[in-house]
Amino acid sequence: MATRFTEDEIIARLFAPLAGEGAFGLRDDAALLPPSPDDGLVVTTDALVAGVHFFADDPPALIAQKALRVNLSDLAAKGAAPIGFLLALALPKDWTNDWLADFARGLGADARDYSCPLLGGDTVATPGPLTLSITALGRASRNRFVSRTGAAPGDVIYVSGTIGDAALGLVIRRAADRLPGLSESARSFLTERYLLPQPRLTLAEALREHASAAMDVSDGLAGDLAKLALASKASAVVDIASVPLSAAAREAIALEPDLLEAAMTGGDDYEVLCCVRGDAQAFERAARAAGTPVTKIGEVIAGDGPPIFRDGKENIIYFNKLSYRHF
Amino acid sequence: MATRFTEDEIIARLFAPLAGEGAFGLRDDAALLPPSPDDGLVVTTDALVAGVHFFADDPPALIAQKALRVNLSDLAAKGAAPIGFLLALALPKDWTNDWLADFARGLGADARDYSCPLLGGDTVATPGPLTLSITALGRASRNRFVSRTGAAPGDVIYVSGTIGDAALGLVIRRAADRLPGLSESARSFLTERYLLPQPRLTLAEALREHASAAMDVSDGLAGDLAKLALASKASAVVDIASVPLSAAAREAIALEPDLLEAAMTGGDDYEVLCCVRGDAQAFERAARAAGTPVTKIGEVIAGDGPPIFRDGKENIIYFNKLSYRHF
Repeated sequence: MATRFTEDEIIARLFAPLAGEGAFGLRDDAALLPPSPDDGLVVTTDALVAGVHFFADDPPALIAQKALRVNLSDLAAKGAAPIGFLLALALPKDWTNDWLADFARGLGADARDYSCPLLGGDTVATPGPLTLSITALGRASRNRFVSRTGAAPGDVIYVSGTIGDAALGLVIRRAADRLPGLSESARSFLTERYLLPQPRLTLAEALREHASAAMDVSDGLAGDLAKLALASKASAVVDIASVPLSAAAREAIALEPDLLEAAMTGGDDYEVLCCVRGDAQAFERAARAAGTPVTKIGEVIAGDGPPIFRDGKENIIYFNKLSYRHF
Repeated sequence: MATRFTEDEIIARLFAPLAGEGAFGLRDDAALLPPSPDDGLVVTTDALVAGVHFFADDPPALIAQKALRVNLSDLAAKGAAPIGFLLALALPKDWTNDWLADFARGLGADARDYSCPLLGGDTVATPGPLTLSITALGRASRNRFVSRTGAAPGDVIYVSGTIGDAALGLVIRRAADRLPGLSESARSFLTERYLLPQPRLTLAEALREHASAAMDVSDGLAGDLAKLALASKASAVVDIASVPLSAAAREAIALEPDLLEAAMTGGDDYEVLCCVRGDAQAFERAARAAGTPVTKIGEVIAGDGPPIFRDGKENIIYFNKLSYRHF
């Protein structure tokens, strides 16, 4: 085996080029961010484990990008703009220089594209699977934060983008012989949606202006809406026929109708789920102007039960489970 | 097996009681901290893996406390005061409610004692060993941060507390039959120093006032001093006889003189290593007043080589390796 980088070389050669202002080129144990007289600070963390959140043989650049993007998705849903991130990386025994260089390249591309530089980190060895956790810091403009708790009966419920693509991409990624009738273009679209989420940071301002409550859809639409409704002490009704599906998702579900449930309850969408009171048209216009269309899927109602999903004919649809659960 | 907590129950029952202001009782995906007009923000992260940084059968409360304290130690060395922390926790397959309750109890005790509440987190499942990473946020009073880069020839080098206890504690923890002649009190003192570091937060103000450079000793005195010297583009000379050792460490080294090298190069001290220019007496007085005595161990010198360790008779001592390395 070729000589591997030392810990110091990993930092100096691969990660230091990603360092932001205040990170001292990653030569210190901590980073220093300047005082912020007007804006609040939003902090969030997400951990990813090989074999649980991604496949160990996924392309390393995409693993890095997904780890960063799931955190950026949280910032977006809170109406915040990225400041920077910290990375804790536990490398399994068989890591190689090439793997790590690709990982850093992917991370660096996203750090640049999303104006979210690396502020610090820790790289350690693990006898287990690759494990990484990212903590992202964001700016809450004028200290305005969009919580989960502000929804009230009568609010309109929106989602960004399309729902279920990643869950269907995971079905395909798990078993290459699934859905043999699916077109190649649909197969690659859904797989990419699983591998590489699109954090909806462009929606942040529209959310700050118009949303009564918001969160990102990470564990599945049905379960995440249940969490938002519970936090807001309300319930919700969703018209399944109005939930936006991509052409690829519609193609997959036409081949295997049971996959509709996977789309509604499967994780990894990283779309924004939000509630809007008052001028819903203005929110739709702001989202369109930001380049991220949103679709009305239902309404917040009084009550304390889980959200009700109805088909176009007013029948209630029951799911086996609402979302992904670790435990 | 008794029913285990669900993910929601883990958060609501065990971790929500540790939540700080702005964390919304951990019912949101992110926390919001208020604007800080005067103080800078210090951020740091450290990851710990069972079998690497601690033993899987260490008491769960101590695992939690160590994970938090190694981050608090970084804040202390940077002259910062804790604001709060985020926890990413990957639980192995065999976790139990009791284990997790003890873990949360230890974490909560330290969160309270160090005024460092939980601001957010992520709890996931792993097929590998218990892995946790903590990101700590601190307040840099008047935006003053003590970096690694400020040392210059002539500065006096200090360490807090005593050095090497944890490395010797690890030797004992690894093999119960080591050092059979060691007293029980020394054995338990050294073991506890390994299990439960003491972050030197009380020194933060004295460091802000007097230190030209500082870091915490986490990987071993010799190697960490080498890092500080390199970052400051200088070298250093240390008188080994002046490095403060506890009575227990002296007892262990008397039994097995080779352990002196473990004490000088082994990790997990979590003492502060710093350089002082000008009125060193004033720094010593401030440290004593803060309840954390410091000891002069050497001097920064011009040069670009690794630090020189000398015994009392001016002989240079060479170590096999300067500190712990993951790779």
